[in-house]
Amino acid sequence: MNAQELIDKLNWRYATKAFDASRKLSTEQLDVLLSAIQLAPSSLGLQPYKVLVISNPEIREQLKAAAYNQTQITDASEIIVFATYKDFNLSHVDDFANNIAATRGLQKEDIQGYVDMMNGSVSSKTQEQLQIWNARQAYIALGILLETAALLAIDACPMEGFSVEQFDEILGLSALNLTSVVIAAVGYRSAEDGYQHYKKVRKSKEDLFIKI
Amino acid sequence: MNAQELIDKLNWRYATKAFDASRKLSTEQLDVLLSAIQLAPSSLGLQPYKVLVISNPEIREQLKAAAYNQTQITDASEIIVFATYKDFNLSHVDDFANNIAATRGLQKEDIQGYVDMMNGSVSSKTQEQLQIWNARQAYIALGILLETAALLAIDACPMEGFSVEQFDEILGLSALNLTSVVIAAVGYRSAEDGYQHYKKVRKSKEDLFIKI
Repeated sequence: MNAQELIDKLNWRYATKAFDASRKLSTEQLDVLLSAIQLAPSSLGLQPYKVLVISNPEIREQLKAAAYNQTQITDASEIIVFATYKDFNLSHVDDFANNIAATRGLQKEDIQGYVDMMNGSVSSKTQEQLQIWNARQAYIALGILLETAALLAIDACPMEGFSVEQFDEILGLSALNLTSVVIAAVGYRSAEDGYQHYKKVRKSKEDLFIKI
Repeated sequence: MNAQELIDKLNWRYATKAFDASRKLSTEQLDVLLSAIQLAPSSLGLQPYKVLVISNPEIREQLKAAAYNQTQITDASEIIVFATYKDFNLSHVDDFANNIAATRGLQKEDIQGYVDMMNGSVSSKTQEQLQIWNARQAYIALGILLETAALLAIDACPMEGFSVEQFDEILGLSALNLTSVVIAAVGYRSAEDGYQHYKKVRKSKEDLFIKI
């Protein structure tokens, strides 16, 4: 694709504060965003998270109260919540191994070396370390969601300002062995959102990059 | 842009294991990748990291030995290392505040409320919590780098398999108040890399997404 168009789109995007509540993503648009999340890479390929796609207005009213009443939670087209496993363990590696074998038409024995390596990697970490590791993988998917949205002229707002405990409670995540990590609201900016006119603030390349 | 082309490019990318050492990115291509990193969003806008762009062959030989001798480290066109601050503090918030004021032609007083909020957010966290938080932001930029590369038909390999201690030592990061978090090798795949032909393994949408 055209590099300048890509950079223009990344400049066009911003953390949308006010969404136009009357505009919803089409089924097709939402599906492209979800496909991009699905295709996001992750360490060892494990995709150690689930992704909630929340449309339900009553649930979103509850979530808003658990997110400093930020209006994006109710006014965006959808709310996407990345959630990692509270207990990440060898059963998740086994699920992935089964998926590799099924997808590639292999026997489990064919990939035993890779499975052993993954089991060793997971077993060597505490649950706290696994949570940190897995959350980082969710943030790769978040980055890819945000860029994909921008390229399709869909607005988005990544959000960390919410109560993990309350989100987990409202969404019933604990019973699913999950905990919420980060949110993205997706939809369309309100014409009234003044933030869209602010000049983007970024470190200069001289400040951000060190060339060796 | 065309949604199908975008998804096709995300399917085209893979964690490149063998790079063609004879092919280098052009200055323009590398600059687009760095612009995408520069435009990546981060919590509060702080960009709490630096990004090393490593071409030097001798340094890369040393880094390879600190990364399980993975050939991507020496054969890719460039190695990009995301590094967060070991001591992240209010001076970093102040630098950002100065940048906001300069970029938008404001006085510091005009943004005092936002600065106070950021100072409160940083002050309320331990250095360990700040490190976790900042590393997550680096992973957003990593996701955006990987997607941008794919869209430009540039290959990449995200890498976590390296010794943080040895990388920090080789790159002199401690003296810069930095520590390495994650790497991406960028360049062009070798025609011999068998991994490019493997069918991509991903959770089904039914498994990955929970719709509410």
